[in-house]
Amino acid sequence: MAKKNAFYAQSGGVTAVINASACGVIEMARKHKNQIANVYAGRNGIIGALTEDMIDTNKESARTIAALRHTPGGAFGSARYKLKGIEENRLEYERLIEVFKAHDIGYFFYNGGNDSMDTAHKVSQISRQMGYPVACLGIPKTVDNDLPITDNCPGFGSVAKYIAVSTQEAALDVASMAKTSTKVFVLEVMGRHAGWIAAAGGLAGKTPAEAPHIILFPEVPFNKKAFLQRVKECVDRYDYCVIVVSEGARYADGKFLAEAGTRDAFGHAQLGGVAPVVADMVRQELGLKYHYAVADYLQRSARHIASATDVKQAYAVGEAAVKFALQGKTAIMPVIKRVSDTPYKWKIDEAPLSRIANKEKMLPKRYITADGFGITAACRRYLEPLIRGEDYPPYKNGLPNYVILKNQPVTKKLKTDFVV
Amino acid sequence: MAKKNAFYAQSGGVTAVINASACGVIEMARKHKNQIANVYAGRNGIIGALTEDMIDTNKESARTIAALRHTPGGAFGSARYKLKGIEENRLEYERLIEVFKAHDIGYFFYNGGNDSMDTAHKVSQISRQMGYPVACLGIPKTVDNDLPITDNCPGFGSVAKYIAVSTQEAALDVASMAKTSTKVFVLEVMGRHAGWIAAAGGLAGKTPAEAPHIILFPEVPFNKKAFLQRVKECVDRYDYCVIVVSEGARYADGKFLAEAGTRDAFGHAQLGGVAPVVADMVRQELGLKYHYAVADYLQRSARHIASATDVKQAYAVGEAAVKFALQGKTAIMPVIKRVSDTPYKWKIDEAPLSRIANKEKMLPKRYITADGFGITAACRRYLEPLIRGEDYPPYKNGLPNYVILKNQPVTKKLKTDFVV
Repeated sequence: MAKKNAFYAQSGGVTAVINASACGVIEMARKHKNQIANVYAGRNGIIGALTEDMIDTNKESARTIAALRHTPGGAFGSARYKLKGIEENRLEYERLIEVFKAHDIGYFFYNGGNDSMDTAHKVSQISRQMGYPVACLGIPKTVDNDLPITDNCPGFGSVAKYIAVSTQEAALDVASMAKTSTKVFVLEVMGRHAGWIAAAGGLAGKTPAEAPHIILFPEVPFNKKAFLQRVKECVDRYDYCVIVVSEGARYADGKFLAEAGTRDAFGHAQLGGVAPVVADMVRQELGLKYHYAVADYLQRSARHIASATDVKQAYAVGEAAVKFALQGKTAIMPVIKRVSDTPYKWKIDEAPLSRIANKEKMLPKRYITADGFGITAACRRYLEPLIRGEDYPPYKNGLPNYVILKNQPVTKKLKTDFVV
Repeated sequence: MAKKNAFYAQSGGVTAVINASACGVIEMARKHKNQIANVYAGRNGIIGALTEDMIDTNKESARTIAALRHTPGGAFGSARYKLKGIEENRLEYERLIEVFKAHDIGYFFYNGGNDSMDTAHKVSQISRQMGYPVACLGIPKTVDNDLPITDNCPGFGSVAKYIAVSTQEAALDVASMAKTSTKVFVLEVMGRHAGWIAAAGGLAGKTPAEAPHIILFPEVPFNKKAFLQRVKECVDRYDYCVIVVSEGARYADGKFLAEAGTRDAFGHAQLGGVAPVVADMVRQELGLKYHYAVADYLQRSARHIASATDVKQAYAVGEAAVKFALQGKTAIMPVIKRVSDTPYKWKIDEAPLSRIANKEKMLPKRYITADGFGITAACRRYLEPLIRGEDYPPYKNGLPNYVILKNQPVTKKLKTDFVV
């Protein structure tokens, strides 16, 4: 294949390490200048390609690109924008190819979750149909850890570490205050459909006495009576109770606890937030003093406590995507394959996008204890290696020295605008 | 003074570094075995003294005590328990002296905030009145940074660092998503009366374009119209808006934006849930998509991102309290005196408890910008040194290796029980 440009875009919710993948892509591409002339990044993800609003990464120094490895968020802007099916919206796909042609783009790297892998797959199909060859590579990214085939998803290990560490720390606080103050602490974590992040909270303790005492998974129908009974037992036995609740926790009929239409302890109508709902149950039914935290974006942007394993893997999948593309491969995604648990060993493998697109990997039943409130030894074996190692960013005057790119635009070549 | 035992207790809300002060007390006491035979710690603070439920710290190894320096929470248990005035509740004070006599306690170290300094002061008075000499030393601790005289309070620097780092990280996340998703992010932080913690969020950005774009202080009456207008301006100008809101944010009439109507053991109004209130205003009046996080206990237990300056100072005030006591001083508290801003230099000084008890240091007007939504250069000069330096705990299998003490009881000597 002759020398071509590459297009890279970030998609969906960003993570603490998605920029590490971008770093892997760009640094590997720069090692193959004879095959990849430049990496253009989409400003605000795929929207940047559709509107021909691309960023010239060659304008960034090697040092700046290297700093992406320790910078959270999406350095080029991400987007929640899903391309529809080819038949429904052929125009968008054709526009992509038109932009790729105009800028001599022969490689398409799409860094995202399930939806994005579907898009990357469709772009590979349309490129074949239109006779303009583009190597289409997915790069896995999701804090939800719900992509199939890959053993885990870059982005998850760091949010898992943040939640496990935060649970452990808050539990020490609550335990010391329980005699005269807060008895129940509730931590709300992300994961609308899959309970991987909630499960990670379980790493904070090893015995039933250690926090978290209760985990509420989206996979386990919420049983209010059993839940309250367990809270009471914990407080009776240990003086306090720490609960990790997934934002996706729901009743047997599928209704989310967060949309229960209740009022919080302060009489305010619920504004979406499962922690206050759970905390209010505890107060109303058991009369116990509570506190709650909602980690929200803090959990997925917490690069300061990123997992070293996660950073390495995020970088590796970015690097591997470029390698695969240079080998002439297309319509695949680098996946992480676990070679062994102890010692933890992994390698990069590949999987076709068609097998990944639009599929969700839920927390398996065997990872949840029989009572539905905890994680099993098998789950712990799976999760532990993913949070291992610290990879601290450099600091300046007490704050992480995160990089902000220049993000200079690539000169437009097309005469037509495209409205998304 | 002949060889005596010491009593140490933790009081009120714990912090990421209160155990570092305990470490300073115990390690310094162990260096003076000829004067201090043993340090007994109150189980659950002062309640442990009243109920004669004390912990024998001599049963803990040097290594375990050293590990307190990097362990958050209150290792011996803390309590929200305020002793009333001497006239109102003479029995409690007499009981304290009775317990001190029974266990040959000649030193009383009380690690807490304003209320605790009042207690320590009263104990010094009663000890004199009852003719049983006890050196009564306060040790400053409060995330709220609201003790007078001392330049800053141990515990604050670490929560300040956590809030500044979290604001910076979440802002990178929101900025990358703003094109198609969340436009407004609200972070709720502690600080019931004083806006020190909220102000620390301001360290995350240096220019008006950088987050946080708005800080809501308890010191500035909340003006809904001005607030919403500023949010709109930010979103128009920067595409997104990051807001740090203090739990103590209130209207001009003094009513908190989020008031629970309940009161804690010290008679303070219980607060919580201001972030959803603010976020809901943004949604209702401006129709903007928002996310919010409630840091709650995560912020004050986040030892993983503690400020090295804070850890050093927390240790130093513990150590200094023992030194002062051994010099025969009483009814004082070690304070931190700032010698210079650049380079930041500080030393330990002393102040009488009578000048500290029950006084609150608010954020001065000159630290808040004229519009009421930001921090001034003077505020930045004050805050910056306090978050400087990282002091990471050791890790094991991806989690901080925090210590849990044996906490073995001291054999009771009194025949009478005391009910608190």
